[in-house]
Amino acid sequence: MSTEFSFQLSATDGAARLGEISTPRGTIRTPAFMPVGTAGTVKAMLPETVRATGADVVLGNTYHLMVRPGAEEVAALGGLHKFMNWDRPILTDSGGFQVMSLAKLRKITESGVTFQSHIDGSAHELTPERSIEIQCLLGADIQMVFDECTSFPCERDEAKASMELSMRWAARSREAFSKYAKPGNALFGIVQGGVHPDLRAASAEALKQIGFEGYAIGGLAVGEGQEMMLETLDVTVPSLPEDKPRYLMGVGTPQDLILSVARGVDMFDCVMPTRSGRHGQAFTWEGKINLRNARFADDPKPLDEASSCPAARDYSRAYLHHLVKSQEYLAPMLLSWANVHFYQDLMAKMRSAIGEGRFETFAKETLARLSKDEPEA
Amino acid sequence: MSTEFSFQLSATDGAARLGEISTPRGTIRTPAFMPVGTAGTVKAMLPETVRATGADVVLGNTYHLMVRPGAEEVAALGGLHKFMNWDRPILTDSGGFQVMSLAKLRKITESGVTFQSHIDGSAHELTPERSIEIQCLLGADIQMVFDECTSFPCERDEAKASMELSMRWAARSREAFSKYAKPGNALFGIVQGGVHPDLRAASAEALKQIGFEGYAIGGLAVGEGQEMMLETLDVTVPSLPEDKPRYLMGVGTPQDLILSVARGVDMFDCVMPTRSGRHGQAFTWEGKINLRNARFADDPKPLDEASSCPAARDYSRAYLHHLVKSQEYLAPMLLSWANVHFYQDLMAKMRSAIGEGRFETFAKETLARLSKDEPEA
Repeated sequence: MSTEFSFQLSATDGAARLGEISTPRGTIRTPAFMPVGTAGTVKAMLPETVRATGADVVLGNTYHLMVRPGAEEVAALGGLHKFMNWDRPILTDSGGFQVMSLAKLRKITESGVTFQSHIDGSAHELTPERSIEIQCLLGADIQMVFDECTSFPCERDEAKASMELSMRWAARSREAFSKYAKPGNALFGIVQGGVHPDLRAASAEALKQIGFEGYAIGGLAVGEGQEMMLETLDVTVPSLPEDKPRYLMGVGTPQDLILSVARGVDMFDCVMPTRSGRHGQAFTWEGKINLRNARFADDPKPLDEASSCPAARDYSRAYLHHLVKSQEYLAPMLLSWANVHFYQDLMAKMRSAIGEGRFETFAKETLARLSKDEPEA
Repeated sequence: MSTEFSFQLSATDGAARLGEISTPRGTIRTPAFMPVGTAGTVKAMLPETVRATGADVVLGNTYHLMVRPGAEEVAALGGLHKFMNWDRPILTDSGGFQVMSLAKLRKITESGVTFQSHIDGSAHELTPERSIEIQCLLGADIQMVFDECTSFPCERDEAKASMELSMRWAARSREAFSKYAKPGNALFGIVQGGVHPDLRAASAEALKQIGFEGYAIGGLAVGEGQEMMLETLDVTVPSLPEDKPRYLMGVGTPQDLILSVARGVDMFDCVMPTRSGRHGQAFTWEGKINLRNARFADDPKPLDEASSCPAARDYSRAYLHHLVKSQEYLAPMLLSWANVHFYQDLMAKMRSAIGEGRFETFAKETLARLSKDEPEA
């Protein structure tokens, strides 16, 4: 196993890329989807089940873990890998996004952000330095620079000022990383700039000047819609280095993943498969369905005959409907499992298609196949 | 595999018995503990995990399944085994106990009980005939006679009248069973009579006159306390046939199980391991603990170093404390798993001890070992 962090591309097909990220804790096959293990657990899944779906890496949330149980507490227990019984790579976000969306009494200055925990109101501070220190205490293999996340819509002036602050924070994050990180750890920069092409270009340029092991695209999937997201990818991805992984944060639907891989994105994370699973929704190769729907009450078919996941094959839709209606724990357990499996299966299929030079056909056929999504219940 | 229901004793040690129940769906090693799969799922556990703990049989609740999704609905989907993905033996209760404890607007007559569902207020009727019909529709391997459950305390006159009604219902249940049941199915009678020795004796006699494949002791663990429960066992068990399984319904703590096996009981069911797991409590070989307790926040030890269960060995108490505090699904998942594993492990140890003629020593040592139970939080 590698003792260093590295990225190797093995094939491209159009803009789509097939590759591998090597880390001291294992290989991440790209394009990769990272299940979200918010508070040290991919919700309603055992870590061995997450792995069995094909996940090479999970995401941990700095904000959630710093407010409970605390970064120093996790470090004292041997780090996040040991804490959550996951020995493969972990990527942590910087906490910036959740501070904006969850914390109370936020105050942003040049230095960083002070806020109160949404759990118990306790006072906390996140600066670029503290965010990186926390990510190192957790023992994250891939860490993210601390950035400011603007909401959508965001005026150009505000987006510009915010992006420029994030770039100064990115430089400070890099500095802190050089102080705290272990050999083999990686730090990713985050391109900001809203939906403004020139700001995105300037942000990418600023990050490249600093230099990172990977480049993320932040500030998308915040309400701008798929079309605008893809337009922003179209103007942003070409300004990123070819030889580094590209990570689209917080995205998305299966369709989003396909269309973004087609544009050269290598990594994704999203709560969608697990959150949907907790709400009775299932991703299948015939589109998304909602098991709460009464039409499933007497449906003897398995969730997805095209799936190799036990959760999707060994139980009838009628049974899953019953579990959802009865609010049984087994409903989120089985549906989260089936959904994460679906996402990993989709990534594996995309990787095969890229390797075999048939990604465009695969993408077209799969988008058609998934077009029968059931409307939200 | 046997095509008939049979019970073979292979050893006795004092009053404790080692045996095997053979059914067309597999063997049940006795003394046996049956995890409770109330509404078609052992809460927060996958069926393969239930099996991996060593469970040979699970219990299904007639009341819960008849009010949702409905017995005919389960039958149309291929029966309860297929519905819940459990191909080994299932014992169903008769619905009598839950009608008394959960249903609304109960009305009891000689014929049976009419009531409203606690889920949606829909009207239902349970008679001995309907209870057996439902249990056969579900496809239960071991079925229970429909009985009336009195609350505790219960005056002698009331207990007598209720017991006598239950005995008439037992005869009607047997009749219905002969009409609906499949070859290899078994019907168990239920001894009632509260804490009154003469009523218990009369009930046992009435049941033996009818003749059943097994004999349950009902109406205990309803608030009478361990001492009175054991006294009732002492006067009841000797009046049961030697060559049939004896089942103590709804019991109990690990200590209850040891003391009841010592008195000749072969089968148990109880929600305690799973319900406790959902409330942050864990059974360990050093007594019961509550993971919610702040003293576990920085405890790096696994739940139970003496356990062979992955849930009890692969995660620290600090992590489990974090999961409980964070109300993560993984908390009930891991703790229910560890607790059911503990119960099955206890049964396996009792079976070994009986087979090796050292049950009394085992019981004494184990009761001492488990005496350090933490007070309820």
